[in-house]
Amino acid sequence: MLVGGRHYRSIWLDEVSGLPRIIDQTRLPFEFALRTLARVDDVAEAIASMRVRGAPLIGAAAAHGLAVALSVDPSDTGLAAAVRQLAETRPTAINLRWALERVVRVVAPIPARDRAARARAEAIAICDEDVETCAAIGEHGAALLERMSAERPGRPLQVLTHCNAGWLATVDWGTALAPLYKAHDAGIPLHVWVDETRPRNQGAALTAFELREHGVAHTVVADNAGGHLMQRGQVDLVLVGSDRTTATGDVCNKIGTYLKALAAKAHAIPFYVALPLSTVDWSIADGLREIPIEERSGDEVRTISGRTPGGRIERVELFSAQSPAANPAFDVTPAALVTGLVTERGIVAATREALASLRKER
Amino acid sequence: MLVGGRHYRSIWLDEVSGLPRIIDQTRLPFEFALRTLARVDDVAEAIASMRVRGAPLIGAAAAHGLAVALSVDPSDTGLAAAVRQLAETRPTAINLRWALERVVRVVAPIPARDRAARARAEAIAICDEDVETCAAIGEHGAALLERMSAERPGRPLQVLTHCNAGWLATVDWGTALAPLYKAHDAGIPLHVWVDETRPRNQGAALTAFELREHGVAHTVVADNAGGHLMQRGQVDLVLVGSDRTTATGDVCNKIGTYLKALAAKAHAIPFYVALPLSTVDWSIADGLREIPIEERSGDEVRTISGRTPGGRIERVELFSAQSPAANPAFDVTPAALVTGLVTERGIVAATREALASLRKER
Repeated sequence: MLVGGRHYRSIWLDEVSGLPRIIDQTRLPFEFALRTLARVDDVAEAIASMRVRGAPLIGAAAAHGLAVALSVDPSDTGLAAAVRQLAETRPTAINLRWALERVVRVVAPIPARDRAARARAEAIAICDEDVETCAAIGEHGAALLERMSAERPGRPLQVLTHCNAGWLATVDWGTALAPLYKAHDAGIPLHVWVDETRPRNQGAALTAFELREHGVAHTVVADNAGGHLMQRGQVDLVLVGSDRTTATGDVCNKIGTYLKALAAKAHAIPFYVALPLSTVDWSIADGLREIPIEERSGDEVRTISGRTPGGRIERVELFSAQSPAANPAFDVTPAALVTGLVTERGIVAATREALASLRKER
Repeated sequence: MLVGGRHYRSIWLDEVSGLPRIIDQTRLPFEFALRTLARVDDVAEAIASMRVRGAPLIGAAAAHGLAVALSVDPSDTGLAAAVRQLAETRPTAINLRWALERVVRVVAPIPARDRAARARAEAIAICDEDVETCAAIGEHGAALLERMSAERPGRPLQVLTHCNAGWLATVDWGTALAPLYKAHDAGIPLHVWVDETRPRNQGAALTAFELREHGVAHTVVADNAGGHLMQRGQVDLVLVGSDRTTATGDVCNKIGTYLKALAAKAHAIPFYVALPLSTVDWSIADGLREIPIEERSGDEVRTISGRTPGGRIERVELFSAQSPAANPAFDVTPAALVTGLVTERGIVAATREALASLRKER
């Protein structure tokens, strides 16, 4: 999407060097810093330190990382070492392993000298397919927004979103934000309430940055404000992403999503979840019992990074280390609270039957 | 309550100088700094810059401020000037004006030479009455906690609270935290989930400090976590304070309270509100329509203050000033979501009839 009026993806190949380039997301929203990933070590470091984050983008970066590694050492040993190094960067990222396996599958059987080029082609394909999937989610979601907007003439459609399910988490378009970009580009008047999304503040830091640069009207609010806004009729729909979805439509997403889903239900406000079908775990049916919730370090609650008046980016402590902090990173919203799932194959109800109808053999 | 093993009130008179002393709450939780308020200017500055905050404490400080002013200039002119100066410190604080009027009523009719002593006696009475009210709220609430704890033998009672309705907001005990202190002191096993309470973080900064110093087990969580904790059976009751309550039991409290009330309802978890009856506005019946919600500066969302690794307390910016921020400071929880109101005269249902039964002519 647009940054400073110019179109960017979150990862791309430099035209001259052919090396992958990324936006250093740890510097956002204050600095728009680009980095070239010249060696596999650079790619591993970028993933581990979250310069790139978001499941689809991590997968894309790892695939490009393998291509970079094979251009130096295309041997079986080199391939195995690079896979190991990249897989260890984010131990729980499912997309990371999926992307690495996909590249390995096509390069392992071929001669070493052809491997780098083939890996690069596969990485490019992974990126392009992700863009296509997100664009399709965007089209289906935008049609919904257009219908809802038409029912509310003369004012912008008010959308609330949580965390960052935008183009910075994917290769382009995003998932929950893709419908907003497509609708905005089509001239539908929108205003987005952006939950800051404590503790890591991806809403304030990334979603607000994305929307601002692309010119979509938005306002950042504390996570506490959403219920009040719904109660006052200031939210027409809620649109969020998903990290993992059960075959029955239970949605695991960033902590705090569930509170917004409950409030939306209480106010009869549509609550939509945008997701690529790749995030559906067809093997599980009960999100509450079967999805383990990652408990992250309490230091993410205790500290926050921001820009000092002097312009430095510093991490400050918000309360004493003598008070313990808990940090469940995700929560589960039961399917009964979900109005619909916006996928690349259309919008369906959050039910086993409706989801199954979208499943194709691959 | 206790700080470093010693009992403190949030405001008291120095034994030697007779001057009011306070805890500088802007330095908490990192520094426990005391200040002596030697002149009325010091009192006004302490209120305006929120070194003292919380409706009951502001009222108590203003009353003491008038006594300090009258010890220098007890004339009618001096009295009027001090009242004006103190009233202007927090234009919307109802308790501030109530306390000033109460002192004026007793000092205006008497000779100038007696005014300072009389004002000081009235300020002391205001403080002592507040302590008595909060202690009574604590006793009634603790009886409830004791009953609930007895039903859950062998484990601590799990309480979730939002914002700071503790002794630092009053003169001692607090409102929502008073039952916790009384129950803890009586040996009832408790664990308190402390919402950090963005944007001003009074939960993380003040409630966690209070509980830690008094020795009550607690854990700070992001405001986003409460729904997840309730869903997993980790909350036995919610206990919060109130800034203003309608005659019908609608509760206006810190932004985010409403989201927790909705979640508690969804999980059949008792949701109690502790309040002195002085916060009931008997003239209004519909909290949603009749209580104006203060919209504070978006800078409170955009920035946060914390301690740098170098030990300085600095305010850092969390996102760009190019993204607007909205900051509704309070929300309204309808009476239907409130299990009971914990007052100094007992616990009652959040209904007009039940509240009216507690009202006495004064």
